[in-house]
Amino acid sequence: MLKVVKFGGTSLADAGQFRKVADIVKSDGTRRYVVASAPGKRNPHDEKVTDLLLQCYRLAKDKKNIDDIFERICARYRDIIAGLGLNLSLEEEFASIKTAVLHRAGRQYVASRGEYLNSRILAAYLGFAFIDAEDCVFFDEADRFIPEKTNRELKKLLEMHEFAVIPGFYGINADGSIRTFSRGGSDITGSIVAAAAGADIYENWTDVSGMLMADPRIVKDPKPIPEITYRELRELSYMGASVLHEEAIFPVRKAGIPINIRNTNAPGDPGTMIVSKATTNVVDTVITGVAGKKGITAIHVEKDMMNSEVGFGRKVLEVLENRNVPFEHLPSGIDTMSVLVTSAAIEECKGAITAEMVKTVNPDSITLVENLALIAVVGRGMVNTEGTAARVFTALARENVNIRMIDQGSSEINIIVAVEEKNYEKTINTIYSEFVK
Amino acid sequence: MLKVVKFGGTSLADAGQFRKVADIVKSDGTRRYVVASAPGKRNPHDEKVTDLLLQCYRLAKDKKNIDDIFERICARYRDIIAGLGLNLSLEEEFASIKTAVLHRAGRQYVASRGEYLNSRILAAYLGFAFIDAEDCVFFDEADRFIPEKTNRELKKLLEMHEFAVIPGFYGINADGSIRTFSRGGSDITGSIVAAAAGADIYENWTDVSGMLMADPRIVKDPKPIPEITYRELRELSYMGASVLHEEAIFPVRKAGIPINIRNTNAPGDPGTMIVSKATTNVVDTVITGVAGKKGITAIHVEKDMMNSEVGFGRKVLEVLENRNVPFEHLPSGIDTMSVLVTSAAIEECKGAITAEMVKTVNPDSITLVENLALIAVVGRGMVNTEGTAARVFTALARENVNIRMIDQGSSEINIIVAVEEKNYEKTINTIYSEFVK
Repeated sequence: MLKVVKFGGTSLADAGQFRKVADIVKSDGTRRYVVASAPGKRNPHDEKVTDLLLQCYRLAKDKKNIDDIFERICARYRDIIAGLGLNLSLEEEFASIKTAVLHRAGRQYVASRGEYLNSRILAAYLGFAFIDAEDCVFFDEADRFIPEKTNRELKKLLEMHEFAVIPGFYGINADGSIRTFSRGGSDITGSIVAAAAGADIYENWTDVSGMLMADPRIVKDPKPIPEITYRELRELSYMGASVLHEEAIFPVRKAGIPINIRNTNAPGDPGTMIVSKATTNVVDTVITGVAGKKGITAIHVEKDMMNSEVGFGRKVLEVLENRNVPFEHLPSGIDTMSVLVTSAAIEECKGAITAEMVKTVNPDSITLVENLALIAVVGRGMVNTEGTAARVFTALARENVNIRMIDQGSSEINIIVAVEEKNYEKTINTIYSEFVK
Repeated sequence: MLKVVKFGGTSLADAGQFRKVADIVKSDGTRRYVVASAPGKRNPHDEKVTDLLLQCYRLAKDKKNIDDIFERICARYRDIIAGLGLNLSLEEEFASIKTAVLHRAGRQYVASRGEYLNSRILAAYLGFAFIDAEDCVFFDEADRFIPEKTNRELKKLLEMHEFAVIPGFYGINADGSIRTFSRGGSDITGSIVAAAAGADIYENWTDVSGMLMADPRIVKDPKPIPEITYRELRELSYMGASVLHEEAIFPVRKAGIPINIRNTNAPGDPGTMIVSKATTNVVDTVITGVAGKKGITAIHVEKDMMNSEVGFGRKVLEVLENRNVPFEHLPSGIDTMSVLVTSAAIEECKGAITAEMVKTVNPDSITLVENLALIAVVGRGMVNTEGTAARVFTALARENVNIRMIDQGSSEINIIVAVEEKNYEKTINTIYSEFVK
């Protein structure tokens, strides 16, 4: 058994959090490789070290004084080191970083230093080796991540150390510059390390006890999801559920390594297991989760005898494709077709798209219905449970929510509805309450 | 007020039926133009005159004797004439038609004579003028119907006669040959005459008291539909509801003339009014009708990250379009898309389509799910009634019908579901019973 564990910013925000992390790592000897983030917020009004570093970068660029802010950064680390009673000095590192910031160091280099310094401290505290990400995470000349070379070199370095800490978020490109992942940050590094180490499990420790069945800003105290498949996760995250970024999941998904989302502040909680194939399809709530997004527009096209016109649908999609607008759904009647797109995607070209459709398919009418929201009810449990659709629609009818579109059938694990934006929160709450008692 | 009335084959099958037709026409002085079909079946084991004529045509082509069958045709007409006590002889016509059949007359000419002769008798019995369709219904050199010329010439002829009978089903082409409508027959002629006459209503008299809410072969004694919009009609008829052919509706729909489907055998029944705009949207059954068709295949395409690939949907449709396969529905998930097509449309090219999709969009998997049926629940009343979807799905769940696809949203007047073929009849009965008490 080998576990790769990644800790997020709040899990490593101060000495107290470092102690929790050390307890977690030390309590299980198979937790051999640790990926660390930069110190996050200690309280809602606090600042993240990475944000402070970026402030320094901007000030330096404008030739302004960075002393005060840089001092706050150093203080964060000094506090952690002192709080842990460590015999470690990073003063030389601080000085060298400050010099770099003042002498036109790249933005991504500056941004990456939060992880670098935090990982140095964590390695010292755990008594683990420190493996710098710039020695094993590679980007090419166009700053695209190189998975093969990274995997090969990382594997070599990991084999040299039974226990190690690796900073997340960054790597190095072909000309020797530090490069950061544009999205997903340390989660990606954790996933890459897990794949290279051939881990049995990738633990992603954060400040929540796993993924929640619904957005806690909409539903009060939603339940955590014990187990979710990659496919369910993707359906929910596409719909806006806050979760690991796609790119962060890809390396472990490809390697067949399950992800366990855990809570550093409640290490006894089992968290959420993200798996390729669920251990059980019997989900007592039937649904795994519900998520959605606002800002959807339906382009409603009507044309008599449309259905006998082979190529009609393709032509409508081509107009969108020419403007690089992806479509979300495409419900069709006999003489009508609707294309649901994000309002943002057509914001700039609404008029042009309408005009081009008129020209291309000569419809009887085109109507834009704006301010719609999409809501996805997702769950592998739906495959084996008849009547889920009936429960969803009965609950929504009871609450007088007018359903503007229903799409079910391509994936057996979801039902997608469109409602007016003003009914968005009500729809999510109604569906959640229907399935979760 | 001016009504154009068309009578179908069973309405003009014998002298008794002719009397009913005459009563109907004479009871309302505004029923000025009558379009007549050929004599239909008098009982389930009877033969239609048109079928007998086509038998003669085939025999003559094979140089076989037509005497017996041709005599049966003449007998039908002689019986009607005698039964009505008419002072009319068609013997010269019979002889001339027989000669033509034996001397390589065209198949369409032969097929058209049933309407011609029946209309001659009806005109005489009603005391109306006889206007031959070959003088006013025109086809071009490619045998396509010419609406403009027909409308102009027909108008002239109608203006010359206050009351007239016009045979349905045929007209004449550019080189003087009789041509018949390939589908829709006398219904089309009725519709064309109604448009040319500027009728206030087009009455289509048949042997049922209007359109039924469901197929009577599936649902026991379904209720007739009092009023249906053209749009609802098209949704239902596309799904296989037996009704006027598309081309038969077009001329009156274009002219804004409502169609009234009536029953010659129950002239007191109001029948079904087919209208552009319903006089009321309050339908006590909520739904207007339910119809469906078997023989549907779902082509299920899965591909990781499909959704971020602009053009994916268009490429899938293009593969179908290149093989001239229209799609029925296109439900889509995040990484999945299904294209529902008729099984017949892909029968010959299943393998090729799959191979081309693999080549074009490189999916993770393509699965064909065969033996599905589509069922459309149609009704303008659904727009103003929340919870219709809930009722449909609750009823189906109660009957353990597994829904394979739901498409609602483009047209507000329908909900379309896909189920396995074996559940087709059960689905239609369940939905009908849910809404019709």
